[in-house]
Amino acid sequence: MTKSALQIARAAYQPKLPKALKGNVKAVSGEATQSVADQEEIKKLFPNTYGMPLVRFEATAEPETCPAMNVGVILSGGQAPGGHNVISGLFDGIKRIHPDGKLYGFLMGPGGLVDHKYIELTSDIIDEYRNTGGFDIIGSGRTKLEKEEQFEKGYEILKELGIKALVIIGGDDSNTNACVLAEYYAAKNYGVQVIGCPKTIDGDLKNEMIETSFGFDTACKTYAEVIGNIQRDCNSARKYWHFIKLMGRSASHIALECALQTQPNICIVSEEVEAKDLSLDDIVTNIAQTVADRAAQGNNFGTVLIPEGLIEFIPAMKRLIAELNDFLAANADEFAQVDKAEQRNYIISKLTPENAAIYASLPEGVARQLSLDRDPHGNVQVSLIETEKLLSEMVGNKLAQWKKEGKYVGKFAPQHHFFGYEGRCAAPSNFDADYCYALGYAASALIANGKTGYMSSIRNLTAPAEEWIAGGVPITMMMNMERRHGEMKPVIQKALVKLDGAPFKTFAAQREQWAKETAYVYPGPIQYFGPTEVCDQPTKTLQLEQQKG
Amino acid sequence: MTKSALQIARAAYQPKLPKALKGNVKAVSGEATQSVADQEEIKKLFPNTYGMPLVRFEATAEPETCPAMNVGVILSGGQAPGGHNVISGLFDGIKRIHPDGKLYGFLMGPGGLVDHKYIELTSDIIDEYRNTGGFDIIGSGRTKLEKEEQFEKGYEILKELGIKALVIIGGDDSNTNACVLAEYYAAKNYGVQVIGCPKTIDGDLKNEMIETSFGFDTACKTYAEVIGNIQRDCNSARKYWHFIKLMGRSASHIALECALQTQPNICIVSEEVEAKDLSLDDIVTNIAQTVADRAAQGNNFGTVLIPEGLIEFIPAMKRLIAELNDFLAANADEFAQVDKAEQRNYIISKLTPENAAIYASLPEGVARQLSLDRDPHGNVQVSLIETEKLLSEMVGNKLAQWKKEGKYVGKFAPQHHFFGYEGRCAAPSNFDADYCYALGYAASALIANGKTGYMSSIRNLTAPAEEWIAGGVPITMMMNMERRHGEMKPVIQKALVKLDGAPFKTFAAQREQWAKETAYVYPGPIQYFGPTEVCDQPTKTLQLEQQKG
Repeated sequence: MTKSALQIARAAYQPKLPKALKGNVKAVSGEATQSVADQEEIKKLFPNTYGMPLVRFEATAEPETCPAMNVGVILSGGQAPGGHNVISGLFDGIKRIHPDGKLYGFLMGPGGLVDHKYIELTSDIIDEYRNTGGFDIIGSGRTKLEKEEQFEKGYEILKELGIKALVIIGGDDSNTNACVLAEYYAAKNYGVQVIGCPKTIDGDLKNEMIETSFGFDTACKTYAEVIGNIQRDCNSARKYWHFIKLMGRSASHIALECALQTQPNICIVSEEVEAKDLSLDDIVTNIAQTVADRAAQGNNFGTVLIPEGLIEFIPAMKRLIAELNDFLAANADEFAQVDKAEQRNYIISKLTPENAAIYASLPEGVARQLSLDRDPHGNVQVSLIETEKLLSEMVGNKLAQWKKEGKYVGKFAPQHHFFGYEGRCAAPSNFDADYCYALGYAASALIANGKTGYMSSIRNLTAPAEEWIAGGVPITMMMNMERRHGEMKPVIQKALVKLDGAPFKTFAAQREQWAKETAYVYPGPIQYFGPTEVCDQPTKTLQLEQQKG
Repeated sequence: MTKSALQIARAAYQPKLPKALKGNVKAVSGEATQSVADQEEIKKLFPNTYGMPLVRFEATAEPETCPAMNVGVILSGGQAPGGHNVISGLFDGIKRIHPDGKLYGFLMGPGGLVDHKYIELTSDIIDEYRNTGGFDIIGSGRTKLEKEEQFEKGYEILKELGIKALVIIGGDDSNTNACVLAEYYAAKNYGVQVIGCPKTIDGDLKNEMIETSFGFDTACKTYAEVIGNIQRDCNSARKYWHFIKLMGRSASHIALECALQTQPNICIVSEEVEAKDLSLDDIVTNIAQTVADRAAQGNNFGTVLIPEGLIEFIPAMKRLIAELNDFLAANADEFAQVDKAEQRNYIISKLTPENAAIYASLPEGVARQLSLDRDPHGNVQVSLIETEKLLSEMVGNKLAQWKKEGKYVGKFAPQHHFFGYEGRCAAPSNFDADYCYALGYAASALIANGKTGYMSSIRNLTAPAEEWIAGGVPITMMMNMERRHGEMKPVIQKALVKLDGAPFKTFAAQREQWAKETAYVYPGPIQYFGPTEVCDQPTKTLQLEQQKG
């Protein structure tokens, strides 16, 4: 592996640990817990892992007497910066407990457990990956661990390797499944513990006990770097409107955090769109109005941040997509006979008036995408819609109309960007490097203390790492019942942007000014070696949330 | 202006100067020069500024006795990291010579000179912009200074402000025009000097005396950062082929430099495509073959770097576009009558067989773009073609064909990226911060020494800044005659990628290995505060070129 100069220098970084994890560790149990909702149902589904106490680690002078333990680790789902540090923290924790302990990595996600594909992660391997981005040390995958058959196949290899515990690094769904697996192995008395770790750049796995998911910090800072660069360009050339879509399957945390870091002219927050029942036309009109207002001041340039999941948060679009899915499923044969040039009119003639009007208002490319490009289940593939182009095209149309009516004088030249893969595997910021290492280290302590069905938890994250609080949270505590594919299921509650939360309110209080004035901030690239105010700050989201609490 | 933590910390950075510019400066004249070609014609066109000697600055103990001087500065063309440092170097240089000297910035490019729009750049303003990216201190623009009328309008305001010299910061065309202006003012005895500075992220303004243009270093490092991040993602998820287009209007220096920094599976170099007379189908076949070879090893992922200017370097595409432009210009009325669904077949029926076959092979969207989306002069807008999508679509079609023939077994899922605006206004790397500051500082010394028609020149750039060689190069030295819009014009020779140069040869020697193996390098973000091997290295292009020399 040819390494860059930064990678070589960065390999020497020793992540900071909370005081409680620096020497011998004692687990202190707190109060018993209950799930955030639907307590009775969840208790019934998790008789062995429900209601367990919170765990908090404390430094102790007493010797620990844990024998060597073998542990398995899995990376599940999309990449997030810091995954390698969770694994190196876990490795170092296991070795601290007993040098004969071993860490096995299952390859390419949960599928590696089921298919018995794994490697032993030795110190040589671990050292190659400390403080690096990516999940390439063992790869990741999207296989869902849900079925007993998978659990049993997994148990075969865990037993064979003498593995005491499995650590699953994943998002809300993967941690839900980790808990189901923990419950299953506990019920069967297999003697295998399961521990989760909160990973996702989307930032939507958080709650009272999990202050943030790892990777959110680095990914947002990487996006904010390039957004800032684009804004500096925008403010120098003064002739383009940049429409910038940001990854984040569902929640708008990333867009909001980037807005707080860069102060764009416009940032759309999906959760607000839904709460206010805004239509696509409302959104387009709002953007066009800002464009027109700025043009009136001679500023024919600006920036718009767009969360990837927007379309599915527009209530009217959701209704249109639902009717389209139903209609096309029921009339596939007839639709297939319709001449291509006539498809659009055909669909408009068949939809209810409200949906027909929205469909008719969509640019041709998007309308075609909605009616033609369908997934194997016959559903619209909303994620393929280039929302940034859809919006800029509709804004352009609206402005052209206003120009005719004499309401707008200006030039509108859009540019489009989509950032996602640019940040998911960035080398972790100091924050994520430390946080992830501590998460992995705490996971080893949870295992040593016999815990299962817990998520590794590090809190008090806006304080220096020394003062961070390490422990574990029963995963059932974060669960409620939700309808998934027509069935009620126990799942970890997804944390969407709260409109009464400090991050959104801070944004909302300033956005009118940002729209009018050019108040861009240029964060620049993540720094690893400079002054602490440059290198060690957590996200604005976290700072604002903690300020509040 | 709200400033980011990095911006605040970075403002304190004191750019390094070459030894010769640290105290009192003496200008030493070298040999007389001549243009790189067409000496007689160029001498005739530039009687006052042709053949001047090279100038080299040396440190001296002798006092300088230059009176206070007023200077104007213009940012011309596309943004490049470091422009603000050229201006702050120029400012500090003027003030060193005499504290009463003044610097005026003409606003929004050369148009500001003609329209008499300017501000005085005071130390308060300058201090806000030291070591920052962007051109927003005075804005930039693309007005070309070519006409006597413009020169005279400019002279009015220069005279009014008592400006002794004008510094034009721009690319090859802007520096050509700077020289034309220098010649004009010299011929008229107006007493206004004109000095150029070599700016462009494209890296194509370089020659024997100008080792690199500023901004190339920072822009390439910013692109290499995100390319590296994408590659780490690519190597973790192992399921996508990323097609990454990189800005660079004409030359492929950026793509090549990024390839040297990141070691992608494929990098296309336009100059090679032209030299080998490769067709679009050749390029597609080459990519598809690499995809198939990697798939045979179980690797259904990879990265392809594509220079923005590619299409215009494919000889067969150039011929097709030329015929299309001519045909559609001559038959606009008839074409307008053709039914939309029939346009493609109509065009195919009218072109010569060779061009018809190429046109027929293009994906529908691109074919439509070639025939419909035309600029005000009726020409195809090649820059609007999404080459990254064009290539991936054609590669996908070829692979589907090979799959039918049993020659390919694998999955091909492409992702697309275009990086340009992400890097043009990044905060300058230490290299660009120092280089630009020195360029501006040297410009002030050229002015103090009465020079005109010179480009500021800093050489020996792979050595520590202390040992850099500062001076000036007569712009006519870089010129030759080229056909532009049907007329022979004196222009600075554009530096394309040399296929016998060390950067390309280094790339060519390794690319087969990079295609087969996964040899990705992850450069990470630009660092400003760390160890020198991380923070202070020039581009690989420059290092390899200097090694050779």
